[in-house]
Amino acid sequence: MEQTAPFPVIEHQRAVFPEGVTLDCGAVLRPLSVAYRTYGTLNAARSNAVLVCHALTGDQYVAERQPLTGRGGWWEALVGPGKPVDTDRFFVICANVLGGCMGSTGPGEEMTDENGVPQGRPWGTDFPSVTICDMVRAQKKLVEKLGVDRLLAVIGGSMSGMQVLEWAATYPEAVFAAAPIAAATHHSAQNIAFHEVGRAAIHSDPDWKGGRYWEDGRIPAQGLSVARMVAHITYLSEAALTRKFGRRLQGASAVTFLEDVFQVESYLRHQGSTFVRRFDANSYLTITRAMDYFDLANEHGSVTAAFANTPTRFFVASFSSDWLFPTSESRALVRALNAAAAPVSFIEIPTDKGHDAFLLDEPEFHRAMGGFLAGAARALGV
Amino acid sequence: MEQTAPFPVIEHQRAVFPEGVTLDCGAVLRPLSVAYRTYGTLNAARSNAVLVCHALTGDQYVAERQPLTGRGGWWEALVGPGKPVDTDRFFVICANVLGGCMGSTGPGEEMTDENGVPQGRPWGTDFPSVTICDMVRAQKKLVEKLGVDRLLAVIGGSMSGMQVLEWAATYPEAVFAAAPIAAATHHSAQNIAFHEVGRAAIHSDPDWKGGRYWEDGRIPAQGLSVARMVAHITYLSEAALTRKFGRRLQGASAVTFLEDVFQVESYLRHQGSTFVRRFDANSYLTITRAMDYFDLANEHGSVTAAFANTPTRFFVASFSSDWLFPTSESRALVRALNAAAAPVSFIEIPTDKGHDAFLLDEPEFHRAMGGFLAGAARALGV
Repeated sequence: MEQTAPFPVIEHQRAVFPEGVTLDCGAVLRPLSVAYRTYGTLNAARSNAVLVCHALTGDQYVAERQPLTGRGGWWEALVGPGKPVDTDRFFVICANVLGGCMGSTGPGEEMTDENGVPQGRPWGTDFPSVTICDMVRAQKKLVEKLGVDRLLAVIGGSMSGMQVLEWAATYPEAVFAAAPIAAATHHSAQNIAFHEVGRAAIHSDPDWKGGRYWEDGRIPAQGLSVARMVAHITYLSEAALTRKFGRRLQGASAVTFLEDVFQVESYLRHQGSTFVRRFDANSYLTITRAMDYFDLANEHGSVTAAFANTPTRFFVASFSSDWLFPTSESRALVRALNAAAAPVSFIEIPTDKGHDAFLLDEPEFHRAMGGFLAGAARALGV
Repeated sequence: MEQTAPFPVIEHQRAVFPEGVTLDCGAVLRPLSVAYRTYGTLNAARSNAVLVCHALTGDQYVAERQPLTGRGGWWEALVGPGKPVDTDRFFVICANVLGGCMGSTGPGEEMTDENGVPQGRPWGTDFPSVTICDMVRAQKKLVEKLGVDRLLAVIGGSMSGMQVLEWAATYPEAVFAAAPIAAATHHSAQNIAFHEVGRAAIHSDPDWKGGRYWEDGRIPAQGLSVARMVAHITYLSEAALTRKFGRRLQGASAVTFLEDVFQVESYLRHQGSTFVRRFDANSYLTITRAMDYFDLANEHGSVTAAFANTPTRFFVASFSSDWLFPTSESRALVRALNAAAAPVSFIEIPTDKGHDAFLLDEPEFHRAMGGFLAGAARALGV
């Protein structure tokens, strides 16, 4: 695989906070930049804002062309004019997470000292460790800057479901409705283990250079590609892989003892090689760590305690063939919310598409999400 | 991780076949060496021989100290004096697979030309692709050389279960009883995908050098370690990882934002770093490919056709939390054997230990295996 130079410079829409943000680890990021996109119009009552959070490798381009890949927004199936998250009706906000690589403060951005003075080089692995709660703190600043005191809803799947939960636990008065999708209240040992494989692959790429790969304009493409390959397997189900590829051969009509014998191999390698053209390795390390750290019960004593007396209404959804964030973890969340006397509805969507189903065309899920948002809007008189 | 020189030279017990063996891919390996160990004594009727096959990273030291690691045999829980595979009663044979790295002809051994003339360097990636059937062909030669026309039983788990099935399909008259454990009749798309991640990690290690790493006495330790890490996750269940490690921290009493934060990470890295001291990367590439190729139905038209009119009796076992070779695949095998009118018993062992359970202390499994062998011995008058 060709080791390409870092990505083209793209001017992302950003909000800059000169005062910065203090992180869970104690470090201060000053200034703080939050790259974001909005869709639709904030109403006069400022009551129709929906924050969409993004997952590990997502970005703020939720419902429009992604400028690096040229592909459509990652949740266009759900978000847009007339869609379940209706941008004709709601003011949709989506921000690149803290630690990301699409314009928000992250390892690829220029390092600053504690007084905000630029250091003339990227942060790299000097970027402090961030948590899901840190990501949410940064989003809260953006939301306030956009004039929104209370969000109609915070929604998101996978790592963004973690952000949704953190929003509701940390800023309950600012979240009228919350929809954590295909998520969990903590990252499991198996999920940490898969992340560690990806990190080990990046660390072992000599082009990673201890995180200082920007110095010679290379990227740890091989390691990052392997990290993406293993992660991608966890996003699909065995059934989906069998349905899409089975044991079908790549080109040859019989087993030929060559490289990339099976279609599933070529597919995975393609996933790896395209990923490295759009994602920064140090961001990948930073964000996977943030997911691993996530543990609501540890933060708050228990999950139920995290949501004690919450005013927020919840919609929890899981997908039957998701083995990365299995239904059992959503059920545990629902039980904790029930114990906290929170209004919560739960749906398990039957599908063979695995974890990725939350991004795909799942009409039953989309109808349920649309209904949940409509109900929240009606309750608020939006 | 330190890139160590290749392993110390160990004199393995070997049978050498000057005529060599012709492989499925058409290549001839000449001579063929098969490294092996035996336990117990062949009886006068030559009717008490049990062939134990080994899995991907196993070896012939099934019931004794492994000379490289100094650890006990990999199946000592099952095989030994007075154990379910009783070496006081049975003559147990175990051979290093073709393509392996413990003395049988494989990528790390000296290359020979078609006339058997040594080429003064290891095979490396010039080693031809082998299949599970090729492995079985090599074992058949060894078994004959040891004076055994018909094996009382062929047993093995995981990849060795594939060998058991190939033995019964290819040499039905030579297999009185067969026990494929935690196996399947083909390698699934998901399993191929996980293997491909491991191969990609090895290929991307600059010390792999296109397979010619022996030239400067280094090994692709980083890549092979990552391959082992991802494979190891698939050998365990989520429940086992949670029980063994959960989210427990490594040393520190709180999340410290350091490397190897969680115990599960240190454990995985340890699995990787110890593995590279005992296993050859080119063997890993060769053997994972052999597993990927395995597809009994494709070879024989159908699984039932593979066992049509078989004289062999079967014992199939799976483990409830095994997601690499799930029970559903053993059930499919049993249905095909039923359709072929083969005598077959099947047991699913309840356990949370995942695929690795076949190697561990599982009394119910051991009792069933012991009973199956005792029944076969009784039927043969052993």
